[in-house]
Amino acid sequence: MTTRTPRYTGVVPPLVTPLTDDGALDVPSLERLVAAQLEAGVSGLFALGSSGETIYLTDEVRDQVLEVIVRTVAGQVPVMAGCIEPSTDRVVVRARRALALGADALVATAPFYALVSDSEIDRHFRLVRGAVDLPLLAYDLPVCVHTKLSPAMVTTLAQDGVIDGVKDSSGNDVEARQTMLALEQHPTYTHLTGHEVVVDAMLLAGCDGVVPGLGNVDPDGYVRLYTAAREGRWADAKAEQDRLARLFRIVAAADRSTAGGNAAGVGGFKTALALLGVIRSNQVSPPLRRLDEDERKRVAVELEQAGLR
Amino acid sequence: MTTRTPRYTGVVPPLVTPLTDDGALDVPSLERLVAAQLEAGVSGLFALGSSGETIYLTDEVRDQVLEVIVRTVAGQVPVMAGCIEPSTDRVVVRARRALALGADALVATAPFYALVSDSEIDRHFRLVRGAVDLPLLAYDLPVCVHTKLSPAMVTTLAQDGVIDGVKDSSGNDVEARQTMLALEQHPTYTHLTGHEVVVDAMLLAGCDGVVPGLGNVDPDGYVRLYTAAREGRWADAKAEQDRLARLFRIVAAADRSTAGGNAAGVGGFKTALALLGVIRSNQVSPPLRRLDEDERKRVAVELEQAGLR
Amino acid sequence: MTTRTPRYTGVVPPLVTPLTDDGALDVPSLERLVAAQLEAGVSGLFALGSSGETIYLTDEVRDQVLEVIVRTVAGQVPVMAGCIEPSTDRVVVRARRALALGADALVATAPFYALVSDSEIDRHFRLVRGAVDLPLLAYDLPVCVHTKLSPAMVTTLAQDGVIDGVKDSSGNDVEARQTMLALEQHPTYTHLTGHEVVVDAMLLAGCDGVVPGLGNVDPDGYVRLYTAAREGRWADAKAEQDRLARLFRIVAAADRSTAGGNAAGVGGFKTALALLGVIRSNQVSPPLRRLDEDERKRVAVELEQAGLR
Amino acid sequence: MTTRTPRYTGVVPPLVTPLTDDGALDVPSLERLVAAQLEAGVSGLFALGSSGETIYLTDEVRDQVLEVIVRTVAGQVPVMAGCIEPSTDRVVVRARRALALGADALVATAPFYALVSDSEIDRHFRLVRGAVDLPLLAYDLPVCVHTKLSPAMVTTLAQDGVIDGVKDSSGNDVEARQTMLALEQHPTYTHLTGHEVVVDAMLLAGCDGVVPGLGNVDPDGYVRLYTAAREGRWADAKAEQDRLARLFRIVAAADRSTAGGNAAGVGGFKTALALLGVIRSNQVSPPLRRLDEDERKRVAVELEQAGLR
Repeated sequence: MTTRTPRYTGVVPPLVTPLTDDGALDVPSLERLVAAQLEAGVSGLFALGSSGETIYLTDEVRDQVLEVIVRTVAGQVPVMAGCIEPSTDRVVVRARRALALGADALVATAPFYALVSDSEIDRHFRLVRGAVDLPLLAYDLPVCVHTKLSPAMVTTLAQDGVIDGVKDSSGNDVEARQTMLALEQHPTYTHLTGHEVVVDAMLLAGCDGVVPGLGNVDPDGYVRLYTAAREGRWADAKAEQDRLARLFRIVAAADRSTAGGNAAGVGGFKTALALLGVIRSNQVSPPLRRLDEDERKRVAVELEQAGLR
Repeated sequence: MTTRTPRYTGVVPPLVTPLTDDGALDVPSLERLVAAQLEAGVSGLFALGSSGETIYLTDEVRDQVLEVIVRTVAGQVPVMAGCIEPSTDRVVVRARRALALGADALVATAPFYALVSDSEIDRHFRLVRGAVDLPLLAYDLPVCVHTKLSPAMVTTLAQDGVIDGVKDSSGNDVEARQTMLALEQHPTYTHLTGHEVVVDAMLLAGCDGVVPGLGNVDPDGYVRLYTAAREGRWADAKAEQDRLARLFRIVAAADRSTAGGNAAGVGGFKTALALLGVIRSNQVSPPLRRLDEDERKRVAVELEQAGLR
Repeated sequence: MTTRTPRYTGVVPPLVTPLTDDGALDVPSLERLVAAQLEAGVSGLFALGSSGETIYLTDEVRDQVLEVIVRTVAGQVPVMAGCIEPSTDRVVVRARRALALGADALVATAPFYALVSDSEIDRHFRLVRGAVDLPLLAYDLPVCVHTKLSPAMVTTLAQDGVIDGVKDSSGNDVEARQTMLALEQHPTYTHLTGHEVVVDAMLLAGCDGVVPGLGNVDPDGYVRLYTAAREGRWADAKAEQDRLARLFRIVAAADRSTAGGNAAGVGGFKTALALLGVIRSNQVSPPLRRLDEDERKRVAVELEQAGLR
Repeated sequence: MTTRTPRYTGVVPPLVTPLTDDGALDVPSLERLVAAQLEAGVSGLFALGSSGETIYLTDEVRDQVLEVIVRTVAGQVPVMAGCIEPSTDRVVVRARRALALGADALVATAPFYALVSDSEIDRHFRLVRGAVDLPLLAYDLPVCVHTKLSPAMVTTLAQDGVIDGVKDSSGNDVEARQTMLALEQHPTYTHLTGHEVVVDAMLLAGCDGVVPGLGNVDPDGYVRLYTAAREGRWADAKAEQDRLARLFRIVAAADRSTAGGNAAGVGGFKTALALLGVIRSNQVSPPLRRLDEDERKRVAVELEQAGLR
């Protein structure tokens, strides 16, 4: 039996970063997005993650984004700030900004582009944690980082108090299970799944919360799903998840011969949010291309079928 | 709502192939293994899969294995026969042998070693199905085959009556969910998960059954897990799965610097079965190395902790 | 300085396996192909390699192919026989057939589909060599086998007399250089490159010979290239290689959305050979698709630009 | 016949970034390193590449590094500045700094961490080139970037005047050959190989110059190798390359169970340079570990065997 009291639980959407058609940060849209999330009852917000196009933003824009989110949240829920940089010293620069701007926790990946060993990845997290006094979540995202955090490394880092949890977008549910079992006696370890379409399953398997990109579009759905799971109403959780899994088809609206994974995914979420009136434009960052009119129509169809319009 | 009545359900362990210390097929051990499975209440048996070391066996030994299993099962449950060969004509040769030897269904992968397009993989399954009149399951095992069967291809093949289901060892639970949703109206499509440690989760997500290598060692556990899930006792299913997930550590008993994935996995299962007295030897096929005395002790510890000894 | 006297040198094309439109072995075409190769002055022939569609052929057809080649070659050059099977015992079965059918040397890959460690791969080659008394070349083809033979492993196997050389289709020219340097004092080690378009470069780097699939189509070109290199006429070697590199565009004639790597590559070679009148049909093995009329025209254009028609 | 007059030729080492034991930029060491390179007769210098640990450096340190190099070179050879960032806007920020600091050309990779399509990669290079008026080389480094620039994309970008060449560290010599052939009529396209141990081969194959990390340690060797190749003395080129290929073993001095690729590679170069007295310390950036005393001894042995000490 797990005896953990995880530090973070619930639905923690990774916010998209609304842009104007000209590519500038769209502050009013971001404020509306945050407000809509809070109203839906999310437990926290993850700023400057992959869904937030962090990797495409200059440091100046990143600072603006975090400032707006922290100000709008106004302490109602914790704000986790992605500090997504390829190496230790560069993560620390971002982590210090996050601290200064009022974030409640940091999220960092293993080094990327860099060619590092497991022991160097371990050192990376220790150095980041030692440099900035905020809770730290390790972000496991092999599709972007091209290394996978092993259960053994996560376990050691958690037991040593270096990380407070994992934001697990690995899609590797076997290692997720093994990690959660290894840490089931840990007092506060948090395992947040980045899944969008098997969240019911991973909550059953022991995850403490969920960080779904699709939660930008339908936070109410994920809150209902999470609540049903917590109350042991697994059939209800599955039904809600099946509906959300169909809605997730908005990430397949883009023509993939010209749109990469981010344009299709984040671009799909932004297009849905624009159709729903939450944000003004579905613009994305260079060099991504935004969804066109045909693709927008396909997104609209999915929104209708999911009962959102 | 799913309206499927899947063709196959329940626990369908992929049988290991017991060998004598000299490397010959150990028929009495195989008979005992089959008997133990039937006694535990499995719903079917998968012969000549990856756990069965098929890829290491000559055609003569493969025939023997299948003959023994079919004879021992004696029609009590369906026997699925792996026809694991790199290309169409070679799969058909094995499929004809399986038919002749009394198998109830065929299991085949996409071509491997071969460099083929998706449309050629699609043609492969159609040609196999056309050549031998037995139900056909597609075996999705990218770790060995090095291609992943896409939800779109599986959906088309199922809708066209080419395949009756998938034995899904991909570990890609997102595509599993998407495939099951796409086929929820199909009358008989079967989705069998090859997971061992997130079976509770994947049953919640909609899988019809499970083909767990670890089921060789603890079929009773998987039958209990499956039954709990079917009866909606999800907390019980999770508890059983957590126990089995710990037991799965027997695949980590081997020193991985000299044992590859098959030696560690199948070798771990065989070592456990030998310790439990079901089979005589933990011998494996060339060029694999069998687990040594130290590793055997580690397996024994896991068996004890799981309550099996 | 290298002091090796390699066991094999020169141009050793990996023969395609001509099929009739009905898919049967086309013996007269195969005889013509072999004769054309011998006339061009090749130093050896590689039967039943990847270009030979071995992986698609039943054992019966494989035997026929080797029988025809050995009979037609009639001892004029050595015949290397691919024994391409996923595991040790299965390779040995094919190696015994190769010995019985008169092959002069064996070519085998590391295990594939199988999940094995480096020490198990090492054991694999030792067991194969111990079972059949013929020279053995290791076939390094990670695009199909999905493991790479390391310079360290090759060096040990060569020094221990297990392998006589490597047929290197890895495309990893760094490890090729390192392997050749490590074995420069070996009396007979042979490093054959599987390159088609950087053969001049790899002969300069120290390779002893070349096994070019494109040599099916233009053996004279590769013989001229090899001869120029051996005589130190490197500018001539480069010019010939540049011409052959352009000719290699025949493997890009196929529409890759429906033709995989084998259909495009082997299919391109066969289409060229059919256009040149060496073989009758460009048919390929199931589930591959043969090149269509449009693609055939593109191949014809390349043949003309290379001066072959 | 190629009719190109490439914009850049010769030996263009990618400079390491010397650090003090405390991890600060070691300016005098960097000045000595640049001076040693110029004295050896290199044709250009590549600042802030992978060997320069760019990915580990803060923007402030990157600026310092480039300032020192440009000042020390003082116009004697062109200085190419790596602008290694994951996305377009971030590359442009670095490119503007490079222009301001006096670089002669820019080097940028495709986006990384980002999930982009080929057409988005193409747009990336066009946007970077449009933003800063300096010659631009595309840096093809799939081991870090995790995408490969295709010959088709490079050809189009070169023909459209977007890029002036490629710094090719892909190790894919087939695509290198195909790219060079496709652009053989281009007036100024430059193909620089990032190889260290098959440079003779790739110069024969048509490369215009070389960017060898090992050139930090032995620039004289690479200048001799390049000169021999340009003068058609291919046997001399090969002999020099063989010597340098042996010297390259310094990157294998580190214990790879704890040192990743950068620690072993850049760390090996730095250790050699420290032993040669060019730089003071073999310190590397966090989270990399520096080579220890045992490893340093192994590097020393290689230096002696190569005749450098």
